[in-house]
Amino acid sequence: MGNPALVEVVRGGRVESRHCGAIAVIDPDGKRVLAIGDIERPVYPRSAIKALQALPLVETGAADRYGFGAEELALACASHGGEEGHVATVMRMLALSGLDASALQCGVHWPLHQASAQALARAGGTASALHNNCSGKHAGFLCVACAIETDRGSYIEPAHPVQREVKAVIENLAGVAIAQDDYAIDGCSVPTWALPLAALARAFARFGAGQGLLPARAEAARRLRAACAEKPWHVAGTERFCTEITTLFGARVFVKSGAEGMCCAALPEQGLGIAVKCDDGAGRAAEVMMAATIARYLKSDAERAALERFIRPTLRNWNGIAVSKIRPTEAI
Amino acid sequence: MGNPALVEVVRGGRVESRHCGAIAVIDPDGKRVLAIGDIERPVYPRSAIKALQALPLVETGAADRYGFGAEELALACASHGGEEGHVATVMRMLALSGLDASALQCGVHWPLHQASAQALARAGGTASALHNNCSGKHAGFLCVACAIETDRGSYIEPAHPVQREVKAVIENLAGVAIAQDDYAIDGCSVPTWALPLAALARAFARFGAGQGLLPARAEAARRLRAACAEKPWHVAGTERFCTEITTLFGARVFVKSGAEGMCCAALPEQGLGIAVKCDDGAGRAAEVMMAATIARYLKSDAERAALERFIRPTLRNWNGIAVSKIRPTEAI
Repeated sequence: MGNPALVEVVRGGRVESRHCGAIAVIDPDGKRVLAIGDIERPVYPRSAIKALQALPLVETGAADRYGFGAEELALACASHGGEEGHVATVMRMLALSGLDASALQCGVHWPLHQASAQALARAGGTASALHNNCSGKHAGFLCVACAIETDRGSYIEPAHPVQREVKAVIENLAGVAIAQDDYAIDGCSVPTWALPLAALARAFARFGAGQGLLPARAEAARRLRAACAEKPWHVAGTERFCTEITTLFGARVFVKSGAEGMCCAALPEQGLGIAVKCDDGAGRAAEVMMAATIARYLKSDAERAALERFIRPTLRNWNGIAVSKIRPTEAI
Repeated sequence: MGNPALVEVVRGGRVESRHCGAIAVIDPDGKRVLAIGDIERPVYPRSAIKALQALPLVETGAADRYGFGAEELALACASHGGEEGHVATVMRMLALSGLDASALQCGVHWPLHQASAQALARAGGTASALHNNCSGKHAGFLCVACAIETDRGSYIEPAHPVQREVKAVIENLAGVAIAQDDYAIDGCSVPTWALPLAALARAFARFGAGQGLLPARAEAARRLRAACAEKPWHVAGTERFCTEITTLFGARVFVKSGAEGMCCAALPEQGLGIAVKCDDGAGRAAEVMMAATIARYLKSDAERAALERFIRPTLRNWNGIAVSKIRPTEAI
């Protein structure tokens, strides 16, 4: 309670809406570099943590065993739009591990990318689990289950070896212990483990810098970051925040958003991890908080200028008229 | 700033997100019946005020001249889903006044109702201004322009006679003067005039009770309320909040939501008007605030029980698992 207003939505001459939140920037040792709002309050990281959930895919050797390249690794870290290329990549991941879409337990929804949803309907198609924005992550979980020869039917359960390993990875990177019952069920039915915002930021600092991790884990993190930097479209999709930021900065900024106003980033060169949570769950505000926070740690004016349209986005109505603007408050 | 947390989103064992806001319940004389948060802060009413924007349609005689019934009047007050029946009604409104879809200046978007958008794509169709959720309101504005024989091409401009009349109606019902430049451009390109939340609630008290209004205006308000009560599906659509609440209570509760967390209601029997604004603009929270506020003024346990699923909605994920719950805080 009581986090500061960090983002404003301005329309006409007035502030129409306000978003409160918290921002943590932490180094690999856990030192606070920036703390706005209550950064010790536990959050559910949701999809912002997908790259950490993908570490076992590389560490267990599953990714190599099935011949995964950058596209497959990026999809395992993705909240994708269900565009044609995303679906094709997930199908390939499943086929390479001897599976098909029937193994996915993420649930079915239409592509988030509107034009792809319309094209699917126009072609007489219907939504499947492949279109679910989490299908790449789930394909990754299934590959791990295959590689370590454990039950595939229960891979979404908190007690399953894959989810236990995910939890152990998060605890190791974040430097915290998480109680076995301190989770919620995510939109795609896997557990999302609660941890303080500051610990989440620390996990991304170590994910980015490798510092304090066993060599194999640091190398797995490096491979996942490199894959996302090489194939940013696979991490989200057309005109999506994470894809556009990664396209701008490549391997210098790893960023991933999640539901309910979560967003995490790693700045490997600076050795920093960032975690933001918009109190009310708004993605539009979490993106502004994240863009404004990244800008603080960029050295060149040109780079900060490139971020400007994400820090102060203009909203246009259905006639293309610029009707409102989102902007950070003085508190960021 | 500093409005109380009114709605919580609970997932797992934790509060995942929080929404702050303000609630005003006012009688026709302007007396405060309930005030939570800063109810004197001006807001843009957005689509929550559509029924007031439709009063000139009845008062000028345009609705009678073109033979409008309950469906057309309800559509003029609607933020509709672009379902087939909505589009057909808007086409009828335009045809009855000698116009067609080319006169609409609301802009084009795909139907908000997902199954209708998919059906449109599947049939090889494409979105038009008729599918815009505001097309009924715009058809109403055009009918007024035709009936009073003024320019139709500029009906969305703040200085146009139709928009000036809308402003005068709002000032009369709310009991406030609004500066000619105190507006923003709405999503559908018409002006949305700023007024204090308390004044907005008072406007709905008078819209519901007729008290303090000239007889012709009170009668026009009664006709619009009766039309929405008779045809609640036309006010929003399948599985939409306003439609479902109106289906439950008929003419006893008039309710209309708007963008950026606005919602207004009239309780004619109690002579009360309600206006809520969720600070961060979230519709999910505005609906909970409104449902919880309406429940305070219902007399029977059965009626309050019928509102329970709107006061504490359960959210299910893509596998149908109940993953979270939205609920009012102690402050409501």
